[in-house]
Amino acid sequence: MRAFNSLADFSDDEISTLLELASRLDRKPEPQALSGKVLALLFLNPSLRTLASFQAAMLRLGGGSFVISPDMSIHGLETRPGIVMDGAAAEHIAEAVPVIASYGDAIGIRAFAERRSLDADLADIEFMSMIRLIETPYINMESAINHPCQNLADWKTLDDLGVPANSGKFVLSWAYHPMALPLAVPASTLYMAARRGMDVTVLRPEGFALPESVMQSAREAAGASGGSVRETEDRGDAMQGANIIYAKSWSSTVHYGNKLKDHELRRGLEDWCIDEPWFDTAAKDCRFMHCLPVRRGVVVTERILDGPRSVVIHEARNRMLAQMAVLHQMLGPES
Amino acid sequence: MRAFNSLADFSDDEISTLLELASRLDRKPEPQALSGKVLALLFLNPSLRTLASFQAAMLRLGGGSFVISPDMSIHGLETRPGIVMDGAAAEHIAEAVPVIASYGDAIGIRAFAERRSLDADLADIEFMSMIRLIETPYINMESAINHPCQNLADWKTLDDLGVPANSGKFVLSWAYHPMALPLAVPASTLYMAARRGMDVTVLRPEGFALPESVMQSAREAAGASGGSVRETEDRGDAMQGANIIYAKSWSSTVHYGNKLKDHELRRGLEDWCIDEPWFDTAAKDCRFMHCLPVRRGVVVTERILDGPRSVVIHEARNRMLAQMAVLHQMLGPES
Amino acid sequence: MRAFNSLADFSDDEISTLLELASRLDRKPEPQALSGKVLALLFLNPSLRTLASFQAAMLRLGGGSFVISPDMSIHGLETRPGIVMDGAAAEHIAEAVPVIASYGDAIGIRAFAERRSLDADLADIEFMSMIRLIETPYINMESAINHPCQNLADWKTLDDLGVPANSGKFVLSWAYHPMALPLAVPASTLYMAARRGMDVTVLRPEGFALPESVMQSAREAAGASGGSVRETEDRGDAMQGANIIYAKSWSSTVHYGNKLKDHELRRGLEDWCIDEPWFDTAAKDCRFMHCLPVRRGVVVTERILDGPRSVVIHEARNRMLAQMAVLHQMLGPES
Repeated sequence: MRAFNSLADFSDDEISTLLELASRLDRKPEPQALSGKVLALLFLNPSLRTLASFQAAMLRLGGGSFVISPDMSIHGLETRPGIVMDGAAAEHIAEAVPVIASYGDAIGIRAFAERRSLDADLADIEFMSMIRLIETPYINMESAINHPCQNLADWKTLDDLGVPANSGKFVLSWAYHPMALPLAVPASTLYMAARRGMDVTVLRPEGFALPESVMQSAREAAGASGGSVRETEDRGDAMQGANIIYAKSWSSTVHYGNKLKDHELRRGLEDWCIDEPWFDTAAKDCRFMHCLPVRRGVVVTERILDGPRSVVIHEARNRMLAQMAVLHQMLGPES
Repeated sequence: MRAFNSLADFSDDEISTLLELASRLDRKPEPQALSGKVLALLFLNPSLRTLASFQAAMLRLGGGSFVISPDMSIHGLETRPGIVMDGAAAEHIAEAVPVIASYGDAIGIRAFAERRSLDADLADIEFMSMIRLIETPYINMESAINHPCQNLADWKTLDDLGVPANSGKFVLSWAYHPMALPLAVPASTLYMAARRGMDVTVLRPEGFALPESVMQSAREAAGASGGSVRETEDRGDAMQGANIIYAKSWSSTVHYGNKLKDHELRRGLEDWCIDEPWFDTAAKDCRFMHCLPVRRGVVVTERILDGPRSVVIHEARNRMLAQMAVLHQMLGPES
Repeated sequence: MRAFNSLADFSDDEISTLLELASRLDRKPEPQALSGKVLALLFLNPSLRTLASFQAAMLRLGGGSFVISPDMSIHGLETRPGIVMDGAAAEHIAEAVPVIASYGDAIGIRAFAERRSLDADLADIEFMSMIRLIETPYINMESAINHPCQNLADWKTLDDLGVPANSGKFVLSWAYHPMALPLAVPASTLYMAARRGMDVTVLRPEGFALPESVMQSAREAAGASGGSVRETEDRGDAMQGANIIYAKSWSSTVHYGNKLKDHELRRGLEDWCIDEPWFDTAAKDCRFMHCLPVRRGVVVTERILDGPRSVVIHEARNRMLAQMAVLHQMLGPES
């Protein structure tokens, strides 16, 4: 495996193999598998779970990692192409990325959406421009539009919970948040659930529909897997018989990148805070999923988050196991 | 071992075993003992020794660790219970702690006193509320009232120096410092010295007596171990025949949490800076101990700190060895 | 090996051995060589390459490292001797350095020039005062005047490129930069090239001559190795037949430590930005070297940096290999 960028790059068999490997490495540790191997971790944005779980994943396999973030360099890293660097930044990503990659057997990169242009973010311009600088195997640790480690971990969580692939009902619900957040998680989660063969409903208020290209990819994946994809603003309808509600806030796509207009649009949507009444029409054991971090009392109520429906900690732990599987395939004895 | 929170939780035999193991691991390294094992390190407060010595301890045993501090998450971590998170913090400790713990075979947590309420800090409310969120074995890396790794390291230092357990004279002295500092080190150091069977004198100015419950625990420990505990403001009396002076500044307990009143109380106490004349009535080879960091020329003079009485670097190195023993028992082959 | 501070401390044979070892460890990994060994890394200044490459180097040899920088301690580290610490800093380097060193089998220290006094910086006063506090084997990770890891990596790069030792022409060129930068890289690079036996030209504008003692050491090294050292402001003359141009900005030595006067002196020197016309009289395959970080469009043009002349990424990767050789000799099985 030379790249782990999107579930769309892998066959069903390859995904199954990764999921089985993740479970096997949990049951049966391999503390020598990546002996002497190094993972470079480049964070252009803050992180807690990804930072911790990748370091832990390498250690459990007998390897190690190092972390670089822009504040470790002198006055940060310049990302703009073709610039005369007479300002604050003393180093350009054009050197930093290949140098950091050259110290690792693989590199993980996190670079959130810049949210200047929806088309640029959907094409993952910034992340792909960094990838073109290197030949080292790489892992997407969340880019403008992808978060494959989260997707693989969530797929494993659905398997662990025994949620059926075909016929399972998965609701991806927009939730209120004071800020406009990126599309990487909702877009790639939608794809994952559709790809798994589930009946997926995107539940979101007006103005927060996902981009048509994102919906289209998911529909195609569902077509191939025997699942389905639809969208609605009707909460009761969406939640009918649901096995899973996966909550996430995201920015408006009609006013993408416009903080002011996005803010106007989300004003009055504070009741999009997942709470027990949402589950009235759901399956009895319907679970609550979220990639974290989550704002308590804003995105979801405390009683849901601290109650039996929530599987968020289980999900977060699966991040480590999913990444161990990816690293094992990328750097391990049979790689 | 499921928890390392206070020496009070361990029998004399268990403490002896840890001390012997610490020495053995110094003489005879075990670079494979914790192969593939991961220690999660969560620092809610700054650190230098603890940060370095825990990482080094895991590495020497063939394992590894990762470090999380609040500034690594998006806009910090919220700690208040029951809050609607519509402010800056994007993540709550209620998720962060169990998630981080789930990536480790054990977790070390540092959370200093909030100094809002003396009773709350004596009960270690904040630290214990985090511990209740997890099932992972844990290590207290300094809480509001405990610092067991420092205590075990200091006990080892006393052994290394050949200071007799029974009949050894140990002075825990308050020292001047421009700021009101927590009680964790003085309270737990007092307990350690009493538990070791030493004749302990707490030397402090008026207004800086340790809380009665802290004194009472120490008296009980001394009662069982054959030691003794007393307190005084009389420097010459306290230092009479002393083998050890252990210096530490701490906040006033009569104006606990009140910076202004504490400041008034400590004004004029600048001569509580340990210097050679303090040792006039002490045993000839009386040593100076301090947990570090220490303010030169404020808490202690340079000639003491750089002279033959000081064992502070030896003490600091014992932090690593003590923690190796704890980690070996918690995660090692026989754990 | 107890210290890696300057190439001047090593015989030709010892340098050859290090270079061969660096290449061998690249071809034939030794993932168990430093099992259970710990490198302490103390950064008093920012770093990217050094930070990443030392961590990667230890991991590839089966050991590990921990990183300490002043912002991890409470309110930073005090460095001034004999001070009464009643200000912000809560810890002095006099404790911090020996404590950190005591947790490692070796320690790497970075401490840039203070640029208060040229004589003090040429004598490496600050770095040497820290070294005197410890007995642990140490590595200079860039001090006021030395950067031996860069030098060894650059020597290896010259070997890798097949640039002849004797008769090879090496131009060390000053370049424009908005700020006054330290002398460590130009001074130690000059020595390295002279020591390797090359014909070295220092190309710099008026006011930016390197200190006489630096030139003198280089001349002596060239005398012994069969190389030569000269200086000029004439670009065409300097570049005549050159195999390598090594660009670096440095502060004026006539107004050392005086930012204002240095600034006046460098004003109008913006055309000292290495570009293709510089190579008109050079050898056809003349290469561009730089230690990084480099300011694009200021120190060197994009077309050089992104073109076939540039070997800066190769150089940076050699940092890791050179340091693996040093660590292997310092801490390895035969050490």
